[in-house]
Amino acid sequence: MNVDIGNALASVSAPGVSRGSLEALDEQVAAAHERIETGRANREHGYEALNLPDRTDPETIRSAVEPIADADAIITVGIGGSALGAATITDALAGESETEAIYLDNVDPEWVSSRLERLPLERTAINVVSRSGTTAETLANFLVVRDAFESAGVDWTDRTIVTTGDSGPLRDLSDRHDLPSLKVPDGVPGRFSALSSVGLVAPAVCGHDLEALLEGAAAEADSLSGSLFECPAYAYGATTYALDARGAGINAMVPYSESLETSAEWFAQLWAESLGKDDLGQTPVRALGVTDQHSQLQLYRAGPRDKFVTFVTTRQRRDRSIPETDVEDLAYLGDATLGELLEAEFEATEASLAAAGRPNVRIELESVDEYELGGFLYGMEAACVLAGELYGVNTFEQPAVEWAKKATRGLLGGGAFEEAEAVAEKTELRIER
Amino acid sequence: MNVDIGNALASVSAPGVSRGSLEALDEQVAAAHERIETGRANREHGYEALNLPDRTDPETIRSAVEPIADADAIITVGIGGSALGAATITDALAGESETEAIYLDNVDPEWVSSRLERLPLERTAINVVSRSGTTAETLANFLVVRDAFESAGVDWTDRTIVTTGDSGPLRDLSDRHDLPSLKVPDGVPGRFSALSSVGLVAPAVCGHDLEALLEGAAAEADSLSGSLFECPAYAYGATTYALDARGAGINAMVPYSESLETSAEWFAQLWAESLGKDDLGQTPVRALGVTDQHSQLQLYRAGPRDKFVTFVTTRQRRDRSIPETDVEDLAYLGDATLGELLEAEFEATEASLAAAGRPNVRIELESVDEYELGGFLYGMEAACVLAGELYGVNTFEQPAVEWAKKATRGLLGGGAFEEAEAVAEKTELRIER
Repeated sequence: MNVDIGNALASVSAPGVSRGSLEALDEQVAAAHERIETGRANREHGYEALNLPDRTDPETIRSAVEPIADADAIITVGIGGSALGAATITDALAGESETEAIYLDNVDPEWVSSRLERLPLERTAINVVSRSGTTAETLANFLVVRDAFESAGVDWTDRTIVTTGDSGPLRDLSDRHDLPSLKVPDGVPGRFSALSSVGLVAPAVCGHDLEALLEGAAAEADSLSGSLFECPAYAYGATTYALDARGAGINAMVPYSESLETSAEWFAQLWAESLGKDDLGQTPVRALGVTDQHSQLQLYRAGPRDKFVTFVTTRQRRDRSIPETDVEDLAYLGDATLGELLEAEFEATEASLAAAGRPNVRIELESVDEYELGGFLYGMEAACVLAGELYGVNTFEQPAVEWAKKATRGLLGGGAFEEAEAVAEKTELRIER
Repeated sequence: MNVDIGNALASVSAPGVSRGSLEALDEQVAAAHERIETGRANREHGYEALNLPDRTDPETIRSAVEPIADADAIITVGIGGSALGAATITDALAGESETEAIYLDNVDPEWVSSRLERLPLERTAINVVSRSGTTAETLANFLVVRDAFESAGVDWTDRTIVTTGDSGPLRDLSDRHDLPSLKVPDGVPGRFSALSSVGLVAPAVCGHDLEALLEGAAAEADSLSGSLFECPAYAYGATTYALDARGAGINAMVPYSESLETSAEWFAQLWAESLGKDDLGQTPVRALGVTDQHSQLQLYRAGPRDKFVTFVTTRQRRDRSIPETDVEDLAYLGDATLGELLEAEFEATEASLAAAGRPNVRIELESVDEYELGGFLYGMEAACVLAGELYGVNTFEQPAVEWAKKATRGLLGGGAFEEAEAVAEKTELRIER
């Protein structure tokens, strides 16, 4: 991926970053890069994620999915980092596969039922993913899915692959039923695991090119260097950090491609869980070009100066002509393609923000394919790790989510937790109709 | 709808609003309510939207769609306010209809092609919506759709309904081909038009109960009063305004129902375009419970104190049991249903934010049905108009989006616009791999 931070310069936008400030920041980037390289070399927790392009073996994954490789649909039962990486890849490349990839990443009962009802279960595979093997939502959904297969007379043990840690209920289950299984790699937090077995099972079943994904990531890894002016990933991480430090803490991620819509969700988790701590962090906002020009652009251009926009663009796409029309006022459309309209709208929107002095950054992908996606996923992860070093936070932990997990378990009778008791003490000020 | 603002009180959260401040603010609410009622009585631009429950005639809409009422699928070609209201309703109620509702609200060529390819066009209806009849994305897509029907040998004039203003290319087209058509109501901006012909054509084709939608909205309208302590909609608008004034300008909308996911997009447009001006306004963030507990919660609970969460919950839903398991660590799940798990997760998440002193507001719907949806749509619109009065902005305009529209047109050769020339002058600072 390439990055253009020109519209984040103080000469264009307010807040903005001066070239002098960027040069000063580059010394911190050099130090952070040293730290990151040490972490990678020592395979420290979290930093190890940046070694995945070398460590992930696509052949192991393809062997594991071989028994289910002919499925018409693959249901991934997982949540958060156990679903978003795979979903980003299979949604981006959905047009290239005959196999449908579905994600059960919520426990809404009607929604779960409607997803299961419309699937031909005898032609559907199950991919259950949880490092601990105890994630409540994932295990509840897995119990429901397994039951649905049994009710339909389909042997779920023939159609299930497990991705989990070395021990725990899912590991036990996979041993007991001799299921194909993969191991969640050590030292890799869920939100950084897209390029491991966690993120690559569904893409493998869909027939996507795992080698190209990893090669694209490896090329991005090769570009990591001690200067933000030479490394797109670090340029992105450092610029967004600098914009936040100057008051623009909201990061609106706006891909100009429907196929990349899920990538904005993946990015939001990566950014929010990694950097959102100690009262610090950027707030990721998910949007979509061109659709959200008719929804969010007014705010981005004329609202509070507390935000910047990250555009993600692709240079190449399959295009489609706009048919000619005899309506004079619309004749200009008939000379163009949908792709040209999309491209013009992107350039116009980017320029409209700059003209209003609103900071924005452009991430450019050559196209939406495995190689470019691998580079994008790796690049954003490296950008996040760099930003975490600059913020001085513990990028690889997410302690604030534990409270609610304990309270949930307590509320459902899964043990005594003081957090569950606090739920009953809610302060109410109800206004009823 | 009912609203609970207890967790936004200063006794719970920081920032938070003291009861004394709320009482002082209530005097401004009373004055704003007077202004709103005057605007409604005089049918002023924008305020007229709050009269829709009385002015919309469901029978006119049902008659117009009668020729296409047996369609298996309805494609709405529209963008922004011309799509999001209808999409909110048909997505929320998708489980109740055999008819598939699809929205072409983007010009991504691969995505448009993939949507059209999988539809049985001879059983598909077209709903094209643009007040001016010149919206570039909508007209480009309509030309593409029309062409696809012609290529498939299907007479599009038998299967198209037009919703537009009194004049313009779409009105001319509808006259020329004698198409069924509806009029976009005067004085109602697109983002406030869900409860008019703009938002109700697709729900009508899907067989949803338009009367119940309007009745629910009318009941919410009846609850408008001069005090935030007596009106859920005003309680929501005033509380969010007060939280923003105290530093929490990010409004994360988190429905705990997959069927309401699109409603968060509709809300984001309503909030962003109406309030995002003059360097003011809240930044809406779209999220989803429980999924985003594993993505955004860390940030919401431990990141900067610049945000609050709006939960949307439903009391009733069709439930599904979680099958029992012999795994001891998971036995507590087998005693519950998916709905109970969802509910426990919501309560735990809400309490976890309060325990960390992070403001949040709860909007309660009885269930997801036409009546409750009508109330929710109307209530959020009234809340938005109230907030606009408190901010002192022009709620019903969106001037900042014009620049990019002109630049787009200029870039495509649709006329000479200085905005298009500015695009070429972009400041670049490229970092390439």
